[in-house]
Amino acid sequence: MNALATQSCPSVGLVERRYATWLEPLVLESGVALGPITLAYETYGKLNASGDNAILLLHALSGDAHAAGWQAGDTKPGWWNSMVGPGRPFDTDCYFVICSNVLGGCQGSTGPSSSNPATGRPYAARFPVLTIGDMVQAQARLLDRLGIDRLLAVAGGSMGGFQALEWATALPERVRGAILLATSARSSPQTLAWNAIGRRAIMSDPRWRGGDYYDSEPPADGLAVARMIGHITYLSEPSLERKFGRAYQDGGGPAFTLEREFAIESYLDYQGTSFNARFDANTYLYITKAMDYWDLPARYGSLDAALARSHATFLLLSFTSDWLYPTSESVAIADALWRLGRPVTHAELASSAGHDAFLVDDEAQAPLIEGFLGAL
Amino acid sequence: MNALATQSCPSVGLVERRYATWLEPLVLESGVALGPITLAYETYGKLNASGDNAILLLHALSGDAHAAGWQAGDTKPGWWNSMVGPGRPFDTDCYFVICSNVLGGCQGSTGPSSSNPATGRPYAARFPVLTIGDMVQAQARLLDRLGIDRLLAVAGGSMGGFQALEWATALPERVRGAILLATSARSSPQTLAWNAIGRRAIMSDPRWRGGDYYDSEPPADGLAVARMIGHITYLSEPSLERKFGRAYQDGGGPAFTLEREFAIESYLDYQGTSFNARFDANTYLYITKAMDYWDLPARYGSLDAALARSHATFLLLSFTSDWLYPTSESVAIADALWRLGRPVTHAELASSAGHDAFLVDDEAQAPLIEGFLGAL
Repeated sequence: MNALATQSCPSVGLVERRYATWLEPLVLESGVALGPITLAYETYGKLNASGDNAILLLHALSGDAHAAGWQAGDTKPGWWNSMVGPGRPFDTDCYFVICSNVLGGCQGSTGPSSSNPATGRPYAARFPVLTIGDMVQAQARLLDRLGIDRLLAVAGGSMGGFQALEWATALPERVRGAILLATSARSSPQTLAWNAIGRRAIMSDPRWRGGDYYDSEPPADGLAVARMIGHITYLSEPSLERKFGRAYQDGGGPAFTLEREFAIESYLDYQGTSFNARFDANTYLYITKAMDYWDLPARYGSLDAALARSHATFLLLSFTSDWLYPTSESVAIADALWRLGRPVTHAELASSAGHDAFLVDDEAQAPLIEGFLGAL
Repeated sequence: MNALATQSCPSVGLVERRYATWLEPLVLESGVALGPITLAYETYGKLNASGDNAILLLHALSGDAHAAGWQAGDTKPGWWNSMVGPGRPFDTDCYFVICSNVLGGCQGSTGPSSSNPATGRPYAARFPVLTIGDMVQAQARLLDRLGIDRLLAVAGGSMGGFQALEWATALPERVRGAILLATSARSSPQTLAWNAIGRRAIMSDPRWRGGDYYDSEPPADGLAVARMIGHITYLSEPSLERKFGRAYQDGGGPAFTLEREFAIESYLDYQGTSFNARFDANTYLYITKAMDYWDLPARYGSLDAALARSHATFLLLSFTSDWLYPTSESVAIADALWRLGRPVTHAELASSAGHDAFLVDDEAQAPLIEGFLGAL
């Protein structure tokens, strides 16, 4: 299947966000009991009679449950729309595809902006600190609710890949296949650093007010700076060169001002502003913290010990220009699986799109994912 | 000469900061006339009778005139102390070595924190926007004052390399040799991006007050965030892994808090705080802006046309793990010089220290610089 063919397949069309709520608290890794909890989710396609065609898509830091199709009022479709639909790699004629907003999120799932039932006010910074494991335990409740014992596959890139690895190792009996894109078995020191700087920017914005900004202006400057840092780490130097180069936003030359002048500055400003329109700063704090804690080898003593728990077949995709989650991170996982004699395919795909490649370079991914799912 | 031998050479000892002031305004690239201007500088060694043994050291973004030796009260020596002194590569028994704080700086040279003679108050954001060329024109005045027509060499890393390239092309008759470390003929789009995010962090700190903070608290959070971003771009992933890994600052594990927990977070916080103690946020704005404008090929139509102006012999050093000013930037300069038939040596040195290598990996640089100067 090539990208043109994929694009010409019909989309899943109009979709609706759904909600699942549990009154029973979820006991988190920290020991804190959080409840009630709600997860927002979408589904595409139909669960078959034997209940064995379900695929769970897992989103990255800034993603949400809206992976495919169009919601009323959308100006663009879900974040993985090109890959999900009839005839697309996650083929909704064959598979029942599910995507949920992570616990701690701000797109319908319980998170820091949710009302704390004990006080009637938003949790804000009183929300408990979460882990990737906690996100997966919440998703497991959703699968129970949907009547799915075992997933055909879990699939996700970046932090979505963390969750996929967590699924495959924490709940191995529930996962037949795992598709990991541009991800890692642990957050690297550099990832910790970028996340910490982003949190510092948010928490030192006076409008953050210790997290209690829901009745007033949010810490928009801090969140913008965090997002701008993120964006540069998601792109590659060649893609910055190609998209922006050193062009001035007005097409001219230096204006000898401290204000923004270069096209790349306008782009970053726009990214910072538009992110504020759809994302909650406190959720940014909590999700980056969960990412920072992510360390699968530490949890089980070694990466081999962690992956030995899994019964899944793995597909790993990494991208040549991704310097945030470089190929070496996928190689580490693939090597461990090979040492364990487990079924794994790792492909490094040529791309100049940097870390963003996992979301935008459909053409190379599509046949690999389609083939992997077909062979499961 | 190896590093141990270098370290065992005597230092230049106690040094004093000196000042040179000109009443006549300097006409900047913007057309603005700035005056009077002062440059802070230090010198090491003695100018010989023929006046042909002078070397000008050019500092990077956060540097100053204090390149070597000890000032009263110093807890550590100047920023290039290991390379400057009797018997060291910049051998003060042979050479007269000069280093000045750049125009726009905050360590004694005229900059935004200086008093505007027209108002008696700090220039702040009314200081004119500068270029690398303006910094070099001011340094040329200093050489005139010191009675030096022609420099044996200019030498600098990062933004210091920008100035060295500017010297060699704007004032070619005054430069015999140019030593460029970890630098580039133009600021890349990624460099523009990091600088723009740093400026955004400073200018959105409410304590920035449009630049007029000298009577109150400075924008310490904004400058800290800018510096933290800088620090990560100066280091390599292997060096972060070796220095910090994923260690918790207290040696334990997750505390499930939004506060800082990892050793690398403590390091970044410390860097942000200590930078505030010695650097002015407005200077950070002006110097990064000057860096952003740096584009030698654009000025003269092409890199070849720019470098064709120079009469200098070049030594270029780049470092394998430097991803901010990667070897490809030095290769571009070396290739242009080779096309022009100009004398150039380019060495890529193996290092895990990232961009910081030019300041810390003395051992590999020392014999190359020593040999280059000896052969001039």
